[in-house]
Order: sequence, then C-alpha cells, then structure tokens
Amino acid sequence: MNSSQAVSSRSPGSRGLPAKAIIREVGLRDGLQSIATVLPTAQKQEWILDAYACGQREIEVGSFVPPKLLPQLADTAEVLAYARTLPGLFASVLVPNLKGAERAIEGGADLMILPLSASHAHSLANLRKTPDEVVAELGRIRAARDAAGSKTLIEGGVGTAWGCTLQGNVPVSEVLRLLQALLDAGADRVSLADTVGYANPYAVSTLVEQALKIAGDRFCCGHFHDTRGLALANAAAALQLGVSRFDASLAGIGGCPHAPGASGNASTEDLAFMLEAMGVDTGLDINALLALRAKVAGWLAGEATHGAMWRAGLPNNFKPAAAR
Amino acid sequence: MNSSQAVSSRSPGSRGLPAKAIIREVGLRDGLQSIATVLPTAQKQEWILDAYACGQREIEVGSFVPPKLLPQLADTAEVLAYARTLPGLFASVLVPNLKGAERAIEGGADLMILPLSASHAHSLANLRKTPDEVVAELGRIRAARDAAGSKTLIEGGVGTAWGCTLQGNVPVSEVLRLLQALLDAGADRVSLADTVGYANPYAVSTLVEQALKIAGDRFCCGHFHDTRGLALANAAAALQLGVSRFDASLAGIGGCPHAPGASGNASTEDLAFMLEAMGVDTGLDINALLALRAKVAGWLAGEATHGAMWRAGLPNNFKPAAAR
Repeated sequence: MNSSQAVSSRSPGSRGLPAKAIIREVGLRDGLQSIATVLPTAQKQEWILDAYACGQREIEVGSFVPPKLLPQLADTAEVLAYARTLPGLFASVLVPNLKGAERAIEGGADLMILPLSASHAHSLANLRKTPDEVVAELGRIRAARDAAGSKTLIEGGVGTAWGCTLQGNVPVSEVLRLLQALLDAGADRVSLADTVGYANPYAVSTLVEQALKIAGDRFCCGHFHDTRGLALANAAAALQLGVSRFDASLAGIGGCPHAPGASGNASTEDLAFMLEAMGVDTGLDINALLALRAKVAGWLAGEATHGAMWRAGLPNNFKPAAAR
Repeated sequence: MNSSQAVSSRSPGSRGLPAKAIIREVGLRDGLQSIATVLPTAQKQEWILDAYACGQREIEVGSFVPPKLLPQLADTAEVLAYARTLPGLFASVLVPNLKGAERAIEGGADLMILPLSASHAHSLANLRKTPDEVVAELGRIRAARDAAGSKTLIEGGVGTAWGCTLQGNVPVSEVLRLLQALLDAGADRVSLADTVGYANPYAVSTLVEQALKIAGDRFCCGHFHDTRGLALANAAAALQLGVSRFDASLAGIGGCPHAPGASGNASTEDLAFMLEAMGVDTGLDINALLALRAKVAGWLAGEATHGAMWRAGLPNNFKPAAAR
C-alpha cells in the first residue's frame, strides 16, 4: 500500500527523474461526476477490478457528496467497500466536508481528499465557503479522524492553483499560504490541481518548486487537466522536480464545465505511456489499459472521450521501464 | 527575415527559456500532403495571407516533388511565388532531391529542406535511398546552389530521429553521425523530426542536447508529431535546452499513415498557446490563429483535425508574452 509520501520513495532515475511514479485513477470520481451517464455499480466494480489487473494500485472511487447533487456517485459507499476487497489497493474518496469525511472514515477509505479552491471567487461559487473556511473544516476532519482512531489519511487538494475561470489570476503566494494552512490544520498531505486547464509547464515548474519547499514529502500529487492540451507537458514539468504521483482519468473523461467538449483530466493511458517511455516505472500494463479504455468508452458511448494512445497504440520498439 | 540561426537570436528569458520562439507553419506541406482533400491554389494563398496577418513569418509552402506523387502540392511553384510577395515572410519548401532543389532555387525560396531518414529501413522504403546517399545528394544541392549564386538556404532535416515504425529503434549515434555528415556536406542548418510520434520528453532532452553539441547554432528546428499525445511535452523539453524554432501545422492536420485517425503535427494554435503562456514571445495573435483554424477546418471538412485550443479558447487571464 502506498502511504502518504508525496514525492514517493524516490530513487532518482536518469536525468534525475523519479525511477517510479504512481498514476492515481480519478475517472470514477472526477471523470464520472462531470458526465451525464450514470454507470451501474457493477460496471464501476468491473472497471476497478480491471484497473487493478492493469496494475493500478491507487483509485479514487467516488465522492461522499449528497446523492441529489451527484447521482452518478450515489453508490460511493458500495464501490468503496468493493475496492477494499482488493489486496493492496489504495482507495481514496473525495469529501466536501466533515459529513462526507465521517462516511469516508466509516467506510474505511485509505485516503480522503478535501478539495479547496485557491480562487476565492471559485471557492464561494462552488463550495459556498471561503478557502479559509475549508481549511477550518479540514481541522475538524482531522479531529474527527483522530477521535475515531481511524487510519484514513487526509489530503488537502488545492484546486484552481494556476488560475480560475471566474477570478482569472490566482496569486502563487495565496496558493502557498493555503498549502501551509492545510498542513498546519492537520492534513497528512497536500496536492495541487489545475482545475480548469490554465497551467503551463513554466507555471508548473515555478509553483511546484515552491510547494515542495513548503510541503516536502507531504506534497503528494499533481492533478492536471488537458483543457488546452497541456496536461502531459505539465506533468512532465512536475516530474522533473521529483513529483511522482499524478491524477489521471481513463480516456481523459471528465470534460470542463467552462469549455463544452473540451478535454478533462489527463488520460491515464497517455500519461502511462509518457512515463514509461521516459523510463519511469508505473507498474502498468499499457495494452491492458487500452483494452479497458475501449470497454469503458463503450459503456460511455455518446460521451466525449479523449487521448491519443487508443488510436496510435504502442510504438513497436516500446519497452516498459521495468524491463530495461 | 529570420536567417539560418537555429537556436535563434536567443536572449534567455525566465528559467533560461528562450525569450522568443518561431513556429514554422508546415500545414501547407506536411499537413496537406497527408490528406486527400486538394486545396485550390487560391485557398492556399488565402491561408498564407491570413497566417501572415496572424504574425506567422516562416511558412513551408509546399514540396517540389513530382505532381503525380503528391497532386495536393502540384501548385508549389505558384504558391511559393505568392508567398514571396509578402514582405519579410520566410518561405521554405521541401525538396526530395537535386531536381526539386533546382526548382526551389529557380523559385527563389528562402529555404529548401532536404529530408533524410535516420532509419535505414524507412529511408529505403520512403526515399529509395540510403541515408548516406541522401547526404551525397545534399552535397550536390549545395554545389548547385553555390554555382547558381542563389541565396536559398539548405536545411538537412533528419526524420525518424526517435524511432521508426519499420525499424524500431534508431541509434542516437546514427542520428548524430548523420547530422554531422549533413553539415559536412554543406547544409546551412539541420533539424530533427519525430516523424512517427515515437519521441518522449526524456528522449528529446537526451538527443537534442547532443545535437546542439554537434550543430550549435546550426541546429534550427524541432518537428514533433502528436501521434501519441506528446508533441507539446516534447517541444517543451527541446525549448528548455534553448531550441526556439518548432514546426507545427494548423489544426494539427497531417495524420500518420501508420496510425489511421491519429494526430499529425503539433497544432500551431496549441503550441502557440503553450509558448506564449510560458512567456516565450512567438509574435502570434492566438485568437486570429483560432479564426484561421476555423476557416481552414471548414475547407477541409471531413478530414481529421486536432488540437485543444479551438474548443477551449484562451484563459481569461491570458497575456501575450510580449505584453508582460
């Protein structure tokens, strides 16, 4: 089970890149929450089982939000219970508040992720709280977790970290302040998300470099959206600084409410190819992932899917990083 | 007019990135040669004029190959003559051999690009020559150019530099040997192309670093295909080493004969966004490029187009690099 390290057990490989990296599958949460199709629980379980067989060991299985808000994720408790049956699978859930956190703790999630929006305007519009009110909520979640004697880890995920469709610029200083505040309030780890696809490799390098100074090993993940085609370039920029965990969504599902038809998350299969091609071991079987992608895209017929590898396939000289 | 510099008149910007970069439009050559639609000459001229109005100052306008082989490019002489009427536009053409070069010289092209395939198998299959026979041809082209007193520059473009669908691996040592051989034979400049989308940011860094040692300022351009989604990440890797000229194709047209439906070249508009967002001045008006993209995509209705920016548009806090 991969625990809270961020820049995970990193033995540097070539050119100082991490030797290993983890792709955390978020298609079942960030992907499904943004599209209309409601996958039956049995299909979610099949997706998780197949992803596990592909080598995925960290999966965000859903979100403990009110079912009225996101009927697509109403079965999160059941999906989480299923995920916990797979040995060594690290199952995370998104929680919007203490109430959601209590369900995550009760369900025995390995990790709960509390999203915070660094954009004040986005935070008020989406979460109806200021960023600092979310930080305070994380403090309450930490207290509840500790009181319950639970081992569920707490991640503070700072979104709109590179800008926001409502507010425009989000100052780096504000993002860094919030990372520190989350850690001070009891987060086991923190991450950064480019929620709306405003990041670029330069901005990623600049912000992640400073985030690592603040959070060190507790900086755990980069979450990049491909809205403007830069998810992989941005992931590569973070990788160069030693970040070794990335969120991604099979077939890039998820989209962006602000750009209809645009790409959502980085595609799991494309990111896996990039990392493996660069010699960074992900533990993933890319051809198996491509087969799973075809299956899930079939379930989601009519929804936009994304990515390049599903058409192109692996190069004929491809060797997984672990085989070199 | 941008002359033969490679890592062009580079005053380093932030994080050592070039302050400026040039996107060489190759849609009219690499794009159109790979799709079935034959654009009328008048539409090509309109494309060039609009691209010029968007700020593009380097355009590969066609290829002097036999019209029987590529009817899409049969009007290259006429298109070149038109391009030469636009002040300060640097017009290049692809030439497969001495015969094509003679036409480029006669037409007054600013630059002729002789493609060479570093993969022996690909070279024989596509050019019916070994790589060293192409080097020898470049020597003859240089002699003809000098004898004619022409100012047309000569670029040796080394393709399949990161691998090949026929041969698989292409040794770095062979790519470097061919770069040196092209320079020795009289190339004014050399470039590297990932013809089939096999490159990754690590491999780009590794090869370009060595190519720069050999060619210095005469290394002029990175040509990345997006077949596996990595064109922008690869361009970012080359940019970090100071490379400041990239080939790209409006709407990413071009495709890959070995992966039907897959992306072709890097999309001009997406690459322009990445560079500008990173603070690298391209001189391009991205919204004008997006309007041109819509027009050209309309002309090419039915052909696959690619890229992300046309759906997402610019971030609302976007500032061109030159305006910061």
